[in-house]
Amino acid sequence: MPFLENAWYIAAWSDELAEGKLHRKLLGQDILFYRRRDGSAVALASRCPHRFAPLHYGDLVEGDRIRCRYHGLEFGPDGTCAHNPNDDGPPPPIRVRAYPLMERYQAIWIWMGDPDAAADHPLSDEFSYLDDPDRYAVCKGAMMLECDYRLAIDNLLDAAHANFLHDDSLGSEALTRAKTEVREEGEFIHADRWAPNGAPSPFLGQFLGSFTDPVDQWANSRWERASLLSVDAGATALGVDIAEGIRFRAAHLLTPQTQTSCHYFWAAARNFSLDDETLTQQIAAATDHIFTTEDKWMLEGQQAMLGDTDFWAARPKLLAGDHAAVAVRRRIDRLIEAEQAGAAAP
Amino acid sequence: MPFLENAWYIAAWSDELAEGKLHRKLLGQDILFYRRRDGSAVALASRCPHRFAPLHYGDLVEGDRIRCRYHGLEFGPDGTCAHNPNDDGPPPPIRVRAYPLMERYQAIWIWMGDPDAAADHPLSDEFSYLDDPDRYAVCKGAMMLECDYRLAIDNLLDAAHANFLHDDSLGSEALTRAKTEVREEGEFIHADRWAPNGAPSPFLGQFLGSFTDPVDQWANSRWERASLLSVDAGATALGVDIAEGIRFRAAHLLTPQTQTSCHYFWAAARNFSLDDETLTQQIAAATDHIFTTEDKWMLEGQQAMLGDTDFWAARPKLLAGDHAAVAVRRRIDRLIEAEQAGAAAP
Amino acid sequence: MPFLENAWYIAAWSDELAEGKLHRKLLGQDILFYRRRDGSAVALASRCPHRFAPLHYGDLVEGDRIRCRYHGLEFGPDGTCAHNPNDDGPPPPIRVRAYPLMERYQAIWIWMGDPDAAADHPLSDEFSYLDDPDRYAVCKGAMMLECDYRLAIDNLLDAAHANFLHDDSLGSEALTRAKTEVREEGEFIHADRWAPNGAPSPFLGQFLGSFTDPVDQWANSRWERASLLSVDAGATALGVDIAEGIRFRAAHLLTPQTQTSCHYFWAAARNFSLDDETLTQQIAAATDHIFTTEDKWMLEGQQAMLGDTDFWAARPKLLAGDHAAVAVRRRIDRLIEAEQAGAAAP
Repeated sequence: MPFLENAWYIAAWSDELAEGKLHRKLLGQDILFYRRRDGSAVALASRCPHRFAPLHYGDLVEGDRIRCRYHGLEFGPDGTCAHNPNDDGPPPPIRVRAYPLMERYQAIWIWMGDPDAAADHPLSDEFSYLDDPDRYAVCKGAMMLECDYRLAIDNLLDAAHANFLHDDSLGSEALTRAKTEVREEGEFIHADRWAPNGAPSPFLGQFLGSFTDPVDQWANSRWERASLLSVDAGATALGVDIAEGIRFRAAHLLTPQTQTSCHYFWAAARNFSLDDETLTQQIAAATDHIFTTEDKWMLEGQQAMLGDTDFWAARPKLLAGDHAAVAVRRRIDRLIEAEQAGAAAP
Repeated sequence: MPFLENAWYIAAWSDELAEGKLHRKLLGQDILFYRRRDGSAVALASRCPHRFAPLHYGDLVEGDRIRCRYHGLEFGPDGTCAHNPNDDGPPPPIRVRAYPLMERYQAIWIWMGDPDAAADHPLSDEFSYLDDPDRYAVCKGAMMLECDYRLAIDNLLDAAHANFLHDDSLGSEALTRAKTEVREEGEFIHADRWAPNGAPSPFLGQFLGSFTDPVDQWANSRWERASLLSVDAGATALGVDIAEGIRFRAAHLLTPQTQTSCHYFWAAARNFSLDDETLTQQIAAATDHIFTTEDKWMLEGQQAMLGDTDFWAARPKLLAGDHAAVAVRRRIDRLIEAEQAGAAAP
Repeated sequence: MPFLENAWYIAAWSDELAEGKLHRKLLGQDILFYRRRDGSAVALASRCPHRFAPLHYGDLVEGDRIRCRYHGLEFGPDGTCAHNPNDDGPPPPIRVRAYPLMERYQAIWIWMGDPDAAADHPLSDEFSYLDDPDRYAVCKGAMMLECDYRLAIDNLLDAAHANFLHDDSLGSEALTRAKTEVREEGEFIHADRWAPNGAPSPFLGQFLGSFTDPVDQWANSRWERASLLSVDAGATALGVDIAEGIRFRAAHLLTPQTQTSCHYFWAAARNFSLDDETLTQQIAAATDHIFTTEDKWMLEGQQAMLGDTDFWAARPKLLAGDHAAVAVRRRIDRLIEAEQAGAAAP
């Protein structure tokens, strides 16, 4: 299955690319990331076109160029060869692919498709809560998952699993019983859950000191091409306006590495106790722990059971709770088909 | 090469499945084993049909069911979905494959083919010596072999290798020189050796305190579909009835895991010093040591030399001593061909 | 891409095969090396034709034979089965391939192709400096490279990389700027560099105690089928006859193991301080260090960037400095094509 290329994918959290270079494989492509002296980020195909040395072995030199460690060819941020120290005369007319990048919401985003199509599919401003310190305290992390990125999307859009996989952390009987309202709105797919008058999950419950049980809870998810999920979840005392409640905004951002592995970036923004750095660290540790020991274990187990078999070819027996995940899978399938058809057209 | 599916394979020694669950891959299939509360064993395909979570990650719950750790679907011992906690109404009409099982002779046996064909190919009672403590003291073990299961069958049916691979343990010049009588009797293939008046192998010799050299020895092997070998070996003082001799009954039971790996289960039953537990442990340790350091090493070396090449395609130059192994290989080939032809028929 | 089989490849340094046996995979073939009692070396296909046991598991026995550890078949140095202990009568008419070998210049050389063609392509006497202790002090080594052997040949024929990959060791601005004269002379391809009046490389410089900068330098490389490189490099005081200079003769000898791995054998012979054993060890350590930490790292990085893609299919953007490497690649391509066409002919 090809990947959807015409999309903004997250390549790294901004602070993962401090000084120096970063090499990542995204959508099967080896990519070198580095920063210009003005701080702006660059992404180049990391295979020197001369004789295929890894450009991520290279050195950053004058002019914000990467110099190949093998023969000293220098490539500028636009990917053109700017200097060849081996021969006299102008540099050879060779280049590496330069990927459109933007840095926003504490992350570096990369456009993996046709540069001319980037304007047609702008990244939404959904994730602005990741860069809004007056209103949100944010923690974040990243990990590799040895599974198809779509298994991770399924997982994140699926409320039903919380009571079984996360029974002592994220599970909430009230939220699980709540009906999911799935809506396709233009480029987005929403899956909203509203659970009035129920017990909170253990995770939320620990932040609800002043509330008394039961609470009103919600968890609204939104998918954006190709593999970006945003979740708005929280709780209030019964009948209180949700604007008064505690609220978590969570970003779950997947970028395929290969057909059966992906980069997973997560962030959690809360609207309370903004200055409590200890709490931020506790939430980060708890989130990482839950995902690592429960979801990652399960996702990689599913991949092992599937092996090389395509998800649909394995004929899943879907349930009502899969509605949102299936809507997203079908959308991704259609987008890839359309992109491939376009790519094949003259 | 497909596997022969219509056959009873050993899945585990009974004591490998105590409480809890056991996950094994047999004939390329992931299978979950567990025990009902009444102690009887269950084997289910270990991939949840919903979204392919490993059922062996699940929990055993009320009603002898396995509950999927991902979404809580519960499957009963017959493989049908008995409960779906996520939706109201009856459980969905989905199921996992339930494999016919039986527990006999200290082992759990699984039928990997068409359940309706199981009655046509009953397991023989050959291995009853594994569960006959009044007459035999038994020790047993198991290991993985990184080779095609048929290389292991070849090995076990081939007396000639003992003098070279096991020269200081199992080798016996007398037994090696003895002619092997190969007989195909219905569903069984026999390879019998009778070596009167010769020196015993070092292994047998250590148990022959009251005998004096030379002895009469025998080693009779029997193959049963698909990969079950039973060996009756022993020695007596010259001319004495073999019923008076020391006797080892050995089971060598192979179950393919993949095309190039297999589970190997072995057991040795002796007819003397039945209460000597120390001796039992010594025999177990010696047997495991010989197989691990000599046979396993050789079998995996053969597999490495063959790589992906089929045994026959590599054109082995067979010798007289291969008669039994070749008869079994040819039989297995024919059985698989017939089974495939039957499977393909309308 | 098939390998060129009609060629002398280095299999081992002589001292790697002392007593006992050596198993190596060359050109994808498992080969057993051992020495006869008279000291001469033998190379046999290491897969027993009986049932594919690794002959390198075997024992060397009377008659300079290898005895298979599995069933005791004995094969002589010519590959024929000389003894079968299992059956009466003459040994079976089976054999393993025996490879033509010769031992020369401190190395064991193997002919991987049609034995009748060996005389048409004798190994040149270029490497006699490896066995000329009156004139040269030699050190040598070997390592595995996880790359196509031709990437290593490219590397060794390419002077341009020294200033970037080896900037603090082998790099010399003067030598890098020197024009490479590439000449195809019959079976050989030469790439010669002459750099008068320049600074020596740090590596050469350390041996030039009595010279003063600048020096005249040279580095002349010669390729010989299929993957043998000899380099003659050195320096003299300005205008002095090069026969007076310090001189290094270096052998860089590649033997493919698989499509993406190769054995690399290197040796360095110097014409000065012949009795300084400490210096020999220092040069050996420095050479191994440079190759391991710089070239091997780069070559394996190139292979990772190429994956399974053929070098030409990846469309390298070649530079003037690649002239020699390209000439050799093209020559190897043509030799393989011709050999394959010949092999296919009746």
